[in-house]
Amino acid sequence: MKKVVTMGEIMLRLSTPRYERFIQADSFDVVYGGGEANVAVSLANYGLDSHFVSKLPENPIGDSAVNHLRRFGVNTDYIARGGDRVGIYYLETGASMRPSKVVYDRANSSISEADIKDFDFDEIFKDAEWFHFSGITPALSEKATLLTEEALKAAKKHGVTVSVDLNYRKKLWTPQRAKEVMTNLMKYVDVCIGNEEDAEKVLGFKPGNTDVTTGELELEGYKSIFKQMKETFDFKYVVTTLRESYSASDNGWSALIYDGNEFYHSKKYDVRIVDRVGGGDSFAGGLIYSLISGKDYKDALEFAVAASALKHTIHGDFNLVSVDEVEALAKGDASGRVQR
Amino acid sequence: MKKVVTMGEIMLRLSTPRYERFIQADSFDVVYGGGEANVAVSLANYGLDSHFVSKLPENPIGDSAVNHLRRFGVNTDYIARGGDRVGIYYLETGASMRPSKVVYDRANSSISEADIKDFDFDEIFKDAEWFHFSGITPALSEKATLLTEEALKAAKKHGVTVSVDLNYRKKLWTPQRAKEVMTNLMKYVDVCIGNEEDAEKVLGFKPGNTDVTTGELELEGYKSIFKQMKETFDFKYVVTTLRESYSASDNGWSALIYDGNEFYHSKKYDVRIVDRVGGGDSFAGGLIYSLISGKDYKDALEFAVAASALKHTIHGDFNLVSVDEVEALAKGDASGRVQR
Amino acid sequence: MKKVVTMGEIMLRLSTPRYERFIQADSFDVVYGGGEANVAVSLANYGLDSHFVSKLPENPIGDSAVNHLRRFGVNTDYIARGGDRVGIYYLETGASMRPSKVVYDRANSSISEADIKDFDFDEIFKDAEWFHFSGITPALSEKATLLTEEALKAAKKHGVTVSVDLNYRKKLWTPQRAKEVMTNLMKYVDVCIGNEEDAEKVLGFKPGNTDVTTGELELEGYKSIFKQMKETFDFKYVVTTLRESYSASDNGWSALIYDGNEFYHSKKYDVRIVDRVGGGDSFAGGLIYSLISGKDYKDALEFAVAASALKHTIHGDFNLVSVDEVEALAKGDASGRVQR
Amino acid sequence: MKKVVTMGEIMLRLSTPRYERFIQADSFDVVYGGGEANVAVSLANYGLDSHFVSKLPENPIGDSAVNHLRRFGVNTDYIARGGDRVGIYYLETGASMRPSKVVYDRANSSISEADIKDFDFDEIFKDAEWFHFSGITPALSEKATLLTEEALKAAKKHGVTVSVDLNYRKKLWTPQRAKEVMTNLMKYVDVCIGNEEDAEKVLGFKPGNTDVTTGELELEGYKSIFKQMKETFDFKYVVTTLRESYSASDNGWSALIYDGNEFYHSKKYDVRIVDRVGGGDSFAGGLIYSLISGKDYKDALEFAVAASALKHTIHGDFNLVSVDEVEALAKGDASGRVQR
Amino acid sequence: MKKVVTMGEIMLRLSTPRYERFIQADSFDVVYGGGEANVAVSLANYGLDSHFVSKLPENPIGDSAVNHLRRFGVNTDYIARGGDRVGIYYLETGASMRPSKVVYDRANSSISEADIKDFDFDEIFKDAEWFHFSGITPALSEKATLLTEEALKAAKKHGVTVSVDLNYRKKLWTPQRAKEVMTNLMKYVDVCIGNEEDAEKVLGFKPGNTDVTTGELELEGYKSIFKQMKETFDFKYVVTTLRESYSASDNGWSALIYDGNEFYHSKKYDVRIVDRVGGGDSFAGGLIYSLISGKDYKDALEFAVAASALKHTIHGDFNLVSVDEVEALAKGDASGRVQR
Amino acid sequence: MKKVVTMGEIMLRLSTPRYERFIQADSFDVVYGGGEANVAVSLANYGLDSHFVSKLPENPIGDSAVNHLRRFGVNTDYIARGGDRVGIYYLETGASMRPSKVVYDRANSSISEADIKDFDFDEIFKDAEWFHFSGITPALSEKATLLTEEALKAAKKHGVTVSVDLNYRKKLWTPQRAKEVMTNLMKYVDVCIGNEEDAEKVLGFKPGNTDVTTGELELEGYKSIFKQMKETFDFKYVVTTLRESYSASDNGWSALIYDGNEFYHSKKYDVRIVDRVGGGDSFAGGLIYSLISGKDYKDALEFAVAASALKHTIHGDFNLVSVDEVEALAKGDASGRVQR
Repeated sequence: MKKVVTMGEIMLRLSTPRYERFIQADSFDVVYGGGEANVAVSLANYGLDSHFVSKLPENPIGDSAVNHLRRFGVNTDYIARGGDRVGIYYLETGASMRPSKVVYDRANSSISEADIKDFDFDEIFKDAEWFHFSGITPALSEKATLLTEEALKAAKKHGVTVSVDLNYRKKLWTPQRAKEVMTNLMKYVDVCIGNEEDAEKVLGFKPGNTDVTTGELELEGYKSIFKQMKETFDFKYVVTTLRESYSASDNGWSALIYDGNEFYHSKKYDVRIVDRVGGGDSFAGGLIYSLISGKDYKDALEFAVAASALKHTIHGDFNLVSVDEVEALAKGDASGRVQR
Repeated sequence: MKKVVTMGEIMLRLSTPRYERFIQADSFDVVYGGGEANVAVSLANYGLDSHFVSKLPENPIGDSAVNHLRRFGVNTDYIARGGDRVGIYYLETGASMRPSKVVYDRANSSISEADIKDFDFDEIFKDAEWFHFSGITPALSEKATLLTEEALKAAKKHGVTVSVDLNYRKKLWTPQRAKEVMTNLMKYVDVCIGNEEDAEKVLGFKPGNTDVTTGELELEGYKSIFKQMKETFDFKYVVTTLRESYSASDNGWSALIYDGNEFYHSKKYDVRIVDRVGGGDSFAGGLIYSLISGKDYKDALEFAVAASALKHTIHGDFNLVSVDEVEALAKGDASGRVQR
Repeated sequence: MKKVVTMGEIMLRLSTPRYERFIQADSFDVVYGGGEANVAVSLANYGLDSHFVSKLPENPIGDSAVNHLRRFGVNTDYIARGGDRVGIYYLETGASMRPSKVVYDRANSSISEADIKDFDFDEIFKDAEWFHFSGITPALSEKATLLTEEALKAAKKHGVTVSVDLNYRKKLWTPQRAKEVMTNLMKYVDVCIGNEEDAEKVLGFKPGNTDVTTGELELEGYKSIFKQMKETFDFKYVVTTLRESYSASDNGWSALIYDGNEFYHSKKYDVRIVDRVGGGDSFAGGLIYSLISGKDYKDALEFAVAASALKHTIHGDFNLVSVDEVEALAKGDASGRVQR
Repeated sequence: MKKVVTMGEIMLRLSTPRYERFIQADSFDVVYGGGEANVAVSLANYGLDSHFVSKLPENPIGDSAVNHLRRFGVNTDYIARGGDRVGIYYLETGASMRPSKVVYDRANSSISEADIKDFDFDEIFKDAEWFHFSGITPALSEKATLLTEEALKAAKKHGVTVSVDLNYRKKLWTPQRAKEVMTNLMKYVDVCIGNEEDAEKVLGFKPGNTDVTTGELELEGYKSIFKQMKETFDFKYVVTTLRESYSASDNGWSALIYDGNEFYHSKKYDVRIVDRVGGGDSFAGGLIYSLISGKDYKDALEFAVAASALKHTIHGDFNLVSVDEVEALAKGDASGRVQR
Repeated sequence: MKKVVTMGEIMLRLSTPRYERFIQADSFDVVYGGGEANVAVSLANYGLDSHFVSKLPENPIGDSAVNHLRRFGVNTDYIARGGDRVGIYYLETGASMRPSKVVYDRANSSISEADIKDFDFDEIFKDAEWFHFSGITPALSEKATLLTEEALKAAKKHGVTVSVDLNYRKKLWTPQRAKEVMTNLMKYVDVCIGNEEDAEKVLGFKPGNTDVTTGELELEGYKSIFKQMKETFDFKYVVTTLRESYSASDNGWSALIYDGNEFYHSKKYDVRIVDRVGGGDSFAGGLIYSLISGKDYKDALEFAVAASALKHTIHGDFNLVSVDEVEALAKGDASGRVQR
Repeated sequence: MKKVVTMGEIMLRLSTPRYERFIQADSFDVVYGGGEANVAVSLANYGLDSHFVSKLPENPIGDSAVNHLRRFGVNTDYIARGGDRVGIYYLETGASMRPSKVVYDRANSSISEADIKDFDFDEIFKDAEWFHFSGITPALSEKATLLTEEALKAAKKHGVTVSVDLNYRKKLWTPQRAKEVMTNLMKYVDVCIGNEEDAEKVLGFKPGNTDVTTGELELEGYKSIFKQMKETFDFKYVVTTLRESYSASDNGWSALIYDGNEFYHSKKYDVRIVDRVGGGDSFAGGLIYSLISGKDYKDALEFAVAASALKHTIHGDFNLVSVDEVEALAKGDASGRVQR
């Protein structure tokens, strides 16, 4: 099994059941998730030796987060224990024209205050083939910024391929700070994934006049940006998902990849949404698996799009699908006929 | 805070979970609601000093109804306590071509047998700016008919603006009785809301040959009716929502207003339905709030339609949305994108 | 009340709640169902004296299956008790492009090992007007094959009309074995129902090049097959449902009947799916009820299609609708407007 | 199978889950029950041909009540359909020193307004061996009083043994009215069951100074009353359960029977309560089954007490136990060891 | 209605359902509670004009906390809105010898960072008769210490009676810091409540050698302490609850009061526990209500003990009982018999 | 971490929620468990490198069983995949005098039909310190008997200490067959655990006249048996738990150990039961951990009894407690006081 490593925060997710609003809820559904953790689970599902690096407090909520990862096959040996709290995000699931709502309560989580010495990066990256992180991790705190760069240095030292999902979070930092930090980190990155909102905020590239709320997509704008990104940072691939948000219940979903020569726009899926959170992470997971498994970048993109289309039909942050299920969809069977 | 008053019945609503049919249900979801109570909650949500006038028995079910209103910010000081029972309605939520089903069990509820002396209308309407009632309240019983007129007289005495939602309920009275009672009450009314089925039954105006089951809407028929209504009763505004029932799961939703000079037809929303009950009430709530807040009648209509479109995505009778959320939709963002 | 008889297996159905995947589930929803049992419930709902013939173990799970049938009005007097176990099927409900998944665990169920002497077929078919079975029952085991033929002989002896739903199940037998057994049984059959996948596997007739995953239907192919079937087995009617699987959430649904002279293609419904399992069985139930009640075959087909369209909106295997509800839809009201 | 008949009201029971108070509940658990219906289910469980006579409205709530009885094996052919509503009782389950609370909403139920001509008592009592009713049924309304006497006359005409459970309900009638009605009906009764609170209110016999809230029982008082009852009405047996209410969670439970010669006090059980409602009804069910099956009155009493002790451990109104389970407890195995 | 004021933190409580351990939970039950908030709800239930002073963030979780208080009748006008987060506590409900477990995540909550200028204490204490706080509030932060003293000064200025529940929380501060702060605040206090663990940690008085885990209580030790406390701080009453923890499921519960002359030990209740959290708060609520209503201190103590015994049978932090229910228990009816 | 190995069946457990009877259940709670799997989880909880050896089908139910073990820290690398089905047991949780009921449906499970070549026992026992199995495993089938002996031979070859829990299951084999098989296997065993019912059935030793349903325990009988067992098989320790079944809700719980010289009877706990299944397995888990960790046999017994007493308070088959929690109880704190 090929060893892959992701690093980031795993949070307690508290979501209202049955499309309830927060102020109606008398119970919350409980899962644990977070950008990189979600990627880690995808990679474990696809049969890779998937390791997640993080820090969680030594209390039963921290234990539960660890168990949630273990349950779905992620190796948790590199999770440090200590610190004060598990970060939380509250999720209200929208419907039709009512958007989903996320309330973050993640300040002072254990990973945001972790020390570099909580981790033995030489051990972590030994024999690893891929390292994935997102723009969320360095945004958590100044310590987390340092930690991320330390991890990236170690990864490069061990010859590990690196991917990033830019994932701008306006509650965590300003575009100024994001640009400062992330521009510096891009030198370690081989594959750069950025969705339509983040590219500008994190790296300062303008995607043209795409108006993401109208459902109109301007591929031409993306192409211009991707070329700039490739030129500036010499990424092997630049990739983005393309979401057309018809409503909170129905989205169009496709992706675009650029290898420096050619742009490839995947098939588009119209998805009826069960749970939209983790869609981008499942895309990253599908892409990494495909590339590490030797697919060419077009097939990889189709696998990643099919994988993440399926994610939208699955409750929770994690994309609980197998390679066979993704392949079946990528090959064209979207009929949803009962499998007996 | 501006004081607004609504009067009517609040019932215990017992609904089957998860689209179950009545004969499958081993539990019922419990909320409390009713035409005017639903309006009262909308008005409280929008920040008005919203008072609900009713009568409920002195038992824990009555207490629960009071608490349900208090929870969502309605002032319950004018709710008399006594009488025999809380009215009930059972709700089976439909899907696709299977319609939702309502079974009423509301006879002999406390409010239907309330006395005028249960209420101090001078106190109630002191400093109030708006009074809203529906055609359901006078239909409950002969005592309720008298009570409604008494309230209307007091409202007018205190210079309160009055709105009505005609809301014909065939289980409560005949068209003959409805016309007799309601025609008399129209003299107190400033703003008249009537959906497509009620106008004829309650006031005897024919809406043309609209076939509400086909989803075709004939605005022209409405215009002719509205003119007659305006002429007959000198309403300030005549208003209706326009529902196109594609199925139990998907509806088209818009509204029409007439100020005596001009007809204005709002934007139309296609809504994926979570809970359709209270749609009309949330429209009335949105309209009253808008007018009382000084919006012009076109903006008021757009606010009311957006508010009630959102209601269709919310479980229960109450429309639990804020002014900001309604404005965002009315201004055009129906994309349902996650709000972080 | 007209007496009708169905025979087959009733299984424990364990389904994941709320679109969860199997590996997420911490509880299973419990109902009991199976092809012929589902038909039996439909017939009881429509007011017929519906008897279900099967065998269930003498343990509380067997009791629960009996109770589940009794609850919905099926007469269970002909259910033998004994044997080892209740067969099980696990159901994961799909959404959008993620298909529903069924895992069977039905080997060695009591009915699959029942003896002919467990049943008194002369008593069972006395005064009966109709007998329905499916291709699943003889496929359960060799004993079940013999039992099915014994029942068919008795039915014919008592002048009972016989219908079959071919229902090929690849987990139970090979096409070779299916053809061998079923071809022999067809001589007892008056009305033959077969959906698009089964006709070829069970009877060897080729439906032309319909590709069921693409949603394209080729009526012409069906017509050629139906003519062959009519010629070979002299069925009174040959019938099929026509499913267009747009996704796991939305299907097109219609049916085709052939009386030897004419082909009649019903109205098509586009259904938003709550629970797709038992769709075909509810079609058979609607068809049998209609034919036994004296409807002509075109009206019968429309009733059956409307009934089974409604089934897709109902949780569980059983189609819990009344004659009035089906008639209302068949007559054209698919608007789903609230019924108060 | 011996035919037994019970007559009375079956209500919708709405109970709060998990010991919640009414004002906390966001859902109600749904079962259907009522004194005589509960007895009918016990008798069906024990293998008798148990018929329940009542009236229920023709709506889905009425259907659900019928189905609930059918599910547990009661024959519902004698249930008339029509009238306005299903009676309701709300149940808040107590714990420790917090008592359970029942709120009744049963006025104007279909059975309370049923006509004698809704029932064919000659058909009903044909071949029947036993008829059971409670003091609740004649208390429902004047029409119900007449209906009850009509049923009793028919029962006697057909030579049916009659039992009554006095069951005084202070919300339904006054002691004066109860005495007037019930004294008249006693002439039809063979077996009279009355718990400690009812004897005085319904028939005017004083049980001595038993203080039921202290948990002290005065058998001597009962003996004096039983003798008077036997003398006055010539009952074959006079019977009472003896509840020692230590708390809402723990009760002592035994019974006393008098055959005119001898008093027999059963074994006493200390029960940890899951659901206390229907305890007395399950006792009546056990007693009737035992006597009809030929047990002597002491064994019958022990069976009835064991049966009703078990009822306290079962959710809902119905006592879902088999003869074997009751016998095992009556024979002395109260260890609760796992049965594999 | 008499005006009473409480001030403190209200937290989101996330508890595992059905005695699950944290690591098993896939959902959390949601209520909101906290020492002083719990007292505020008790006082509202008893019919007082109960105001709660706190600060909550302007997000939907903050809204939900406000609504939870409003639902149960607490006036929330004095709750400031702003700051970062709602404090959380996780609760795992124990059983038998497995203790309940609380994990706090309350740092940086809005109230812990509130400014004195968030509140208008002159307005708050105008016309108020009683102010209650606990040792938790000043322990939250240095700002909260200052805020508490400011509130106490204002209360005294307005002639308001003050009570405190010492409530030592070792996770919030050290005994040294607690003593320093609390000793200073005692000069504002009239009625001092402290349970067995807190007296020493907060005020430094030694309760003798009571070993709280053995269930043995040493009243003599308490008497010595109470005398010292009375002498030192000139409290009007010194009060403690006395818990005998037989197990997580069963406790003994009584209380002791000292008025400077006499010690009075209440009746003791043995309670089967549904939810033990908020037991002490419900005691404070009962005591304050009783004293403000003019009961003598012995009757007040009995009322408070009965109220808090009942709390142990109620899910959530709040004691949802009425004056009548408490009086009934205090007068001796602990039988738990069904109330119809 | 010390490596420990257990081998056996892990089943799907379907249990009725909230003390419901099977015939009431509309959902089943889902966990996975089985004698040796339960031991494996205990050992993982205590920090050992715990490996579970079994076989599960390659379907999502098999996946779920694997995930359930992984979630709680068990290494599942030695679980072979293949075969037909996951064995099932249905559990109805009893209360008071109503016993819990188990219905097994485990025939033809994958492990019962596993081949020796599915496992590489040299790899499995490499570096292992302990191997545990129960009398259930060899009872599953003849193949399973052979498999068990093969495992035991390999364990001995690798110098691994072996423990057995005799665990007689009358549904799986006769006493004759049990004795024949188990007597042969005892030569590989170092530590023999047998509860009061099994000793005689499996090994033929008579425990004296203990009547397990009366709650009376006869230690003397055990002592005589233990001596015989020690003499016959030269076990290092002979151990039994001693259950006094007061009711399905309350049990007494202690244990007895014999080292060839001395008998040691542990402290006895009175437990209020949440879930009694897995009690014996958690005892075995506690004992193995203690002995492998170097505790003397008396301390080991106390740890094991405390651990298994706690198990009775935990939902599911698994004992989810930490070493610290067990030690706290073993050291005497059974007060169940809230841990904050």
